Amino acid sequence: MVLDEYLNRYPKLVENYLKDFFESKRKELNDSYILDVFDAIYEYTMRGGKRLRPLLMIVGYKLYGGRNEDEIIKASASIEIVQSYLLIHDDIMDNSDLRRGKPTLHRIFQKNYMDDRTGENLAIIAGDLASMYAYEIFENLDIPADKKLKAILKMTKIIEDTGYGQILDVVSSIRKNFGEDDLFMIHKYKTAKYTIEGPMIMGAILAGSENFDMITNYAIPVGIAFQLQDDILGLFGDEKEIGKPVTSDLEEGKKTLLVLKAMENPKFRNTVEKYMGKKNITMDELNEVRNAVKESGSLEYSYKKLYDLVKGAQNAIMPIDTEEKQFLYEFAEYVIKRRY
Amino acid sequence: MVLDEYLNRYPKLVENYLKDFFESKRKELNDSYILDVFDAIYEYTMRGGKRLRPLLMIVGYKLYGGRNEDEIIKASASIEIVQSYLLIHDDIMDNSDLRRGKPTLHRIFQKNYMDDRTGENLAIIAGDLASMYAYEIFENLDIPADKKLKAILKMTKIIEDTGYGQILDVVSSIRKNFGEDDLFMIHKYKTAKYTIEGPMIMGAILAGSENFDMITNYAIPVGIAFQLQDDILGLFGDEKEIGKPVTSDLEEGKKTLLVLKAMENPKFRNTVEKYMGKKNITMDELNEVRNAVKESGSLEYSYKKLYDLVKGAQNAIMPIDTEEKQFLYEFAEYVIKRRY
Repeated sequence: MVLDEYLNRYPKLVENYLKDFFESKRKELNDSYILDVFDAIYEYTMRGGKRLRPLLMIVGYKLYGGRNEDEIIKASASIEIVQSYLLIHDDIMDNSDLRRGKPTLHRIFQKNYMDDRTGENLAIIAGDLASMYAYEIFENLDIPADKKLKAILKMTKIIEDTGYGQILDVVSSIRKNFGEDDLFMIHKYKTAKYTIEGPMIMGAILAGSENFDMITNYAIPVGIAFQLQDDILGLFGDEKEIGKPVTSDLEEGKKTLLVLKAMENPKFRNTVEKYMGKKNITMDELNEVRNAVKESGSLEYSYKKLYDLVKGAQNAIMPIDTEEKQFLYEFAEYVIKRRY
Repeated sequence: MVLDEYLNRYPKLVENYLKDFFESKRKELNDSYILDVFDAIYEYTMRGGKRLRPLLMIVGYKLYGGRNEDEIIKASASIEIVQSYLLIHDDIMDNSDLRRGKPTLHRIFQKNYMDDRTGENLAIIAGDLASMYAYEIFENLDIPADKKLKAILKMTKIIEDTGYGQILDVVSSIRKNFGEDDLFMIHKYKTAKYTIEGPMIMGAILAGSENFDMITNYAIPVGIAFQLQDDILGLFGDEKEIGKPVTSDLEEGKKTLLVLKAMENPKFRNTVEKYMGKKNITMDELNEVRNAVKESGSLEYSYKKLYDLVKGAQNAIMPIDTEEKQFLYEFAEYVIKRRY
């Protein structure tokens, strides 16, 4: 499997470079209050995660003939630091306690300074700083200035689009009229463009390509499918595998395609509504919602969408004849099969 | 006066371009929730302010022989949008109600959505989006890629340094040990580097310069002086002129050089401490603090620092022999003489 090969090879190399970058950046600083915040960003970034975005940037680069593996690995660290930036701010907005099994940054600072406002303020700044570090990754890349500039401006556009998705997400819980189209718009901006299409295009830009239609035709459906699978795992997954309580999506009142579709059916609407946003949901209550989602045909509906999207994405890459085609094909399969 | 000439000429041109930029950006968007946030950033940016940072970028450019006035005016809009970004986040952190005489963005959103968390979340995103718009200003500039890239990376560094200053500022109110050196460090990062040195260097970079020592030797003292004057006006200024309650610095418990120095004198320490952070300070109470600051010699101490810094800055620009020398000389004078 090319997918496994790449997963074994690249994320590790990206992490090594992230470590180098933060260690060298750290040497520029000496104030202990500043270092506290810096070290928190560093630790947060190194907590792990799948490093899919850097991997997809590397694939986008190779796909268009890029050969300088050292430099693309460094460049790809940028999008992983963007991920830290966005997650740090997301954690504040969602008022989350945990991220990747450890306290969120605002919780860490709130505890250290024994003050909620100060903790949240330092986390806002930490996110802002991380976004600057992402740009600084480009400073020492051995890549021509015009390509770096284009890649930086693409990264900017990715972050901007993710912001639009985040606006829609933030207001979704208080909107009365919120349907399938609105949901797919969020998935497109917050997941498909940000996680799949954006990193691949950045890689393609750094390799010198100027036409990204094929990437878009592959990445948007795969990205939306990725999010649909995320939502399925969030309700039906294994807690140990997904790394968060399987009741948490429901407790957050997250408007997924699963619950939207089930609520369209009058027979199941009340069951689902009753538990949306409820705190401390029991296993019996969870199973009630799971049954409603299954019996209403909503789970099947999500799976059908998911398969169609993945199929469409796989068709889009038919013209490719390099190793990367195999990777992208397998990655699309993985989106369906993954358990976490 | 060259200063007046420039102040009459450039800020208006920068504002015209800001309007063009936002109007053209606006055409890319259509979702009403996204447009709400976008329009708020747009309105916030157009509220006014002195546009000193763009002006100083233009001066830095001309100082090093830059001739393309149209392009530097466009480029200089970037740092004004950075200003919106940082102020939007600052307003959240300070929990402020007003900015430039109108409600802060988080207050606007809190009112519109009748939910405090949602309002603050949308303001965090609004700041994040503004920072991306600042980068996008560079997209359509008719300036070579390598210079644009360097200017973008300098802007990144400016925002990063401002973040470090903001960390020190946020923790200053809860730190026990906080002295003059700590205060000057904040002024250096949050004002001198961000407001004066950074924009001037960005301009110099866009003009093709690679040595910025003279700018630094001028800008850092002027910037610190600028902040010292800000603090003097914040306690002794005219409310109508400074555009905020003259009790607000005191009510916020702001650790200025004025109060730090007065508190070093045992005779005046209690008077000052009693009112630091107190809400609804009366004119009588304010006058008590003003007297303490005067009688302790602290006001004189600040003025002396201010004059020395301005003098040093003016000496640094002796070697220049262009019109910009006169501007910088007058600007340093203005820092002392300004009433708002």
